[in-house]
Amino acid sequence: MLTKSEYAAAQSHAAAMIRESGLCITDDETHKVEVADFGLGRLDVEGAQILTLVATNRIAVKVVALFPGQTLPEHWHPPVGDDPGKEEIVRVVSGTLRLYIPGDDNMRAGSIPAGKEGVYTARHELILKPGDQVTAEPGTKHWFQAGEDGAVMYSFSSVARDVLDGFTDPDIKRVTEIQEA
Amino acid sequence: MLTKSEYAAAQSHAAAMIRESGLCITDDETHKVEVADFGLGRLDVEGAQILTLVATNRIAVKVVALFPGQTLPEHWHPPVGDDPGKEEIVRVVSGTLRLYIPGDDNMRAGSIPAGKEGVYTARHELILKPGDQVTAEPGTKHWFQAGEDGAVMYSFSSVARDVLDGFTDPDIKRVTEIQEA
Repeated sequence: MLTKSEYAAAQSHAAAMIRESGLCITDDETHKVEVADFGLGRLDVEGAQILTLVATNRIAVKVVALFPGQTLPEHWHPPVGDDPGKEEIVRVVSGTLRLYIPGDDNMRAGSIPAGKEGVYTARHELILKPGDQVTAEPGTKHWFQAGEDGAVMYSFSSVARDVLDGFTDPDIKRVTEIQEA
Repeated sequence: MLTKSEYAAAQSHAAAMIRESGLCITDDETHKVEVADFGLGRLDVEGAQILTLVATNRIAVKVVALFPGQTLPEHWHPPVGDDPGKEEIVRVVSGTLRLYIPGDDNMRAGSIPAGKEGVYTARHELILKPGDQVTAEPGTKHWFQAGEDGAVMYSFSSVARDVLDGFTDPDIKRVTEIQEA
């Protein structure tokens, strides 16, 4: 749950980060940045700001801005019918992005959000800089954390069905609730 | 046919344009920019410089740099098996991009390359600026022309099979030949 003013402030901050990263977005797109707190209500710790540029039945292009130290919770893209699951390629535009995937635990730069040790199971750390690009294979658990200056990244993928994504944390609700007050 | 030095000069020029547009590309990617003269041997008039960022069985992401006034020849993305043809979304990053699609002839800013009136049949002009985004529907003829400052654009698409693209101009060979001398 976020208040309207929290939502608006996060949207504005994220749009400024995207512009500062060198990407050109329109004024209209500024207001389309989705602020996702994943129902956890502590946006600066666990959350993401997402601008969808393209979403068709076949492809999706998103720009994701993460605030300094913000963590996008562990999730995976499950198979749907004949589809083996969303194939996602992440490309860093600005800042430092920590990507965690299954494998040997080599976590050094990043950290698990306090109290969430049980729901961040992927501990193999990749440190990505602008121009770095990595594929998240369908079905593979992964999560992101921005470095101290935040991060802006592209997500290029086959059709995105975000509401079908699996999350390790059972407390997560993918759709942000906004409080009127 | 391009000489090696023509190819290298065009690649370097295009990489500089891409960087000036605000996109971060790696040094390695600089050398992966494809210079396409479409077998016509007059690159500055008809050609394109293309950096493929992503090419999987499901999605493709390319950055296309067009020199000032350069024209990317009329083509279309044909159906392949069960696939209705490549779905392509173009998003302008820098400069002015003229896009031509079938429809009423309203061409004003652009012009057909000299002597090629017969092979540029789409004459409905759309003038695109940074942040503008348009979908080229599968099977629909289209061509591009950069404004006087050149243009850099993204092409987001379902799987790209460039060698299967149809071109209106029968003289076109999609793969650039490079002269050793």
